[in-house]
Amino acid sequence: MSTYVYLNGDWIAPEHAKVSVFDRGFLFADGIYEVVPVYQGRPFLAEHHLARLDRSLAALAIPNHGDPFWYGLIEQLLARNAISDGLIYFQVTRGAETQRSHLPLGTLTPTVFASVSPLAVHWGVPTPAKVTLCEDIRWLRCDIKSISLLGNIMLKQHAQAQGAMEPLLFRGDHITEGASSNYFAVKDGALYTAPTDHLILPGITRMWVIELARQLGLPVYEQPFRVSELTQLDELFLTSSSREVQPIGQIDDIMIGQGQCGKITEQLVQAFHESKRKHCSS
Amino acid sequence: MSTYVYLNGDWIAPEHAKVSVFDRGFLFADGIYEVVPVYQGRPFLAEHHLARLDRSLAALAIPNHGDPFWYGLIEQLLARNAISDGLIYFQVTRGAETQRSHLPLGTLTPTVFASVSPLAVHWGVPTPAKVTLCEDIRWLRCDIKSISLLGNIMLKQHAQAQGAMEPLLFRGDHITEGASSNYFAVKDGALYTAPTDHLILPGITRMWVIELARQLGLPVYEQPFRVSELTQLDELFLTSSSREVQPIGQIDDIMIGQGQCGKITEQLVQAFHESKRKHCSS
Repeated sequence: MSTYVYLNGDWIAPEHAKVSVFDRGFLFADGIYEVVPVYQGRPFLAEHHLARLDRSLAALAIPNHGDPFWYGLIEQLLARNAISDGLIYFQVTRGAETQRSHLPLGTLTPTVFASVSPLAVHWGVPTPAKVTLCEDIRWLRCDIKSISLLGNIMLKQHAQAQGAMEPLLFRGDHITEGASSNYFAVKDGALYTAPTDHLILPGITRMWVIELARQLGLPVYEQPFRVSELTQLDELFLTSSSREVQPIGQIDDIMIGQGQCGKITEQLVQAFHESKRKHCSS
Repeated sequence: MSTYVYLNGDWIAPEHAKVSVFDRGFLFADGIYEVVPVYQGRPFLAEHHLARLDRSLAALAIPNHGDPFWYGLIEQLLARNAISDGLIYFQVTRGAETQRSHLPLGTLTPTVFASVSPLAVHWGVPTPAKVTLCEDIRWLRCDIKSISLLGNIMLKQHAQAQGAMEPLLFRGDHITEGASSNYFAVKDGALYTAPTDHLILPGITRMWVIELARQLGLPVYEQPFRVSELTQLDELFLTSSSREVQPIGQIDDIMIGQGQCGKITEQLVQAFHESKRKHCSS
């Protein structure tokens, strides 16, 4: 928990950070967010996170304060909270007006909230996790990193009730993603992951793992794998900014690779650690 | 705009009503809402609105304060704001905790916000409106009256840009509903409206109009009408708690009944007014 958070120009204790009940973020989920990992004081792949933040804001026609503003906030958040390994959280909503109206009545000043929480950086190979297959009930603009997250929350709660780390979501016969992660399947030495269309969030870690895999000479196909193929996968892992590369050993009652972390997954876990090391020392 | 709003036990001026940035309503849209119309100091169809509020809360496993609590709030809101015709707004979120986590870390106290705004009650036949056909991009649990409304907002903004009052949403070939309304088509003297499944919000005005139509001896089929049938409709109208029965004269470039309010629609507008009159005088 951070000691100081940023809210609309002020630096305040988290317990004093409050927004109007008429903020459109609170009434309508009319806003977006972004999470940026920081290793040893340096934001990781920040330009990609800020490009996605810009795309999310553009999709909602909310003005962007611009990259220098966000870089300045990252620097301040780290300094004021004396954090060197952390997760930066940014949230922007369309703002507040004095009356609830689906369509904004005037031109509003966006609400900007930012905080940082400490991160225990992993350097080992994570224990394989269990996931659970669920129908993807979310909207058709999952490419926007919006705060309209109730569907994700309900899917995560369902997964938790099944003793699973994440839901493995499908639409029709296609695997889309998780509730806060992307998935990669490994079959015959090649990687398969859902393409970046309106049905998934274009994960920054997803993008980076594709880059690392290509550097390792592994073929990557951005095409969805199928529910009907799940019993035949060699390996499965998920990616997210906080979990990086997380091996999956089990989908409900289906064991993947006898529940062990597969060789290609482990290669990518190590390559990811190596890229963090380079980032910290460069 | 109300002079006093209710927030977690306090009665305060709207500009002082604030919630934590860590409220799950603000971070995750993890909450629900309800709107209850009031005519001459008496909430209309309140038992149905409160039953739906209860279903929405149950879907999210958020505890309900119970009907007496909500009836008490309605009474207080009207009295403290000296309003006799108004729209009551209730919002309940899962509550706040000191850290952002998709899955709640503890058992939270729900946040309860309530306000009232004055309502100009209609007694005439509304001018037919234009709507615009759009793909329904929302999630698959539209039956929950949740605050996870960004999809609805984006669809409404699109409609506004087309000079339309509401979007007319479809999935595949089926019309579902509007962004904050239900639709009824009239063909050969019968009414057609989408059934109450996971794809629409079960509107209280929708339910009441079905009841009024049956009292008038009009056949009502709760089955979706099709995009391919739109050019052949005799009449079209939408329903919502604030707009009651609103005739539609135009879908994009398609005129419905030469843009006039149809006879059956007008019958239902008048029957609705009559039921308000009875409600006020009973």
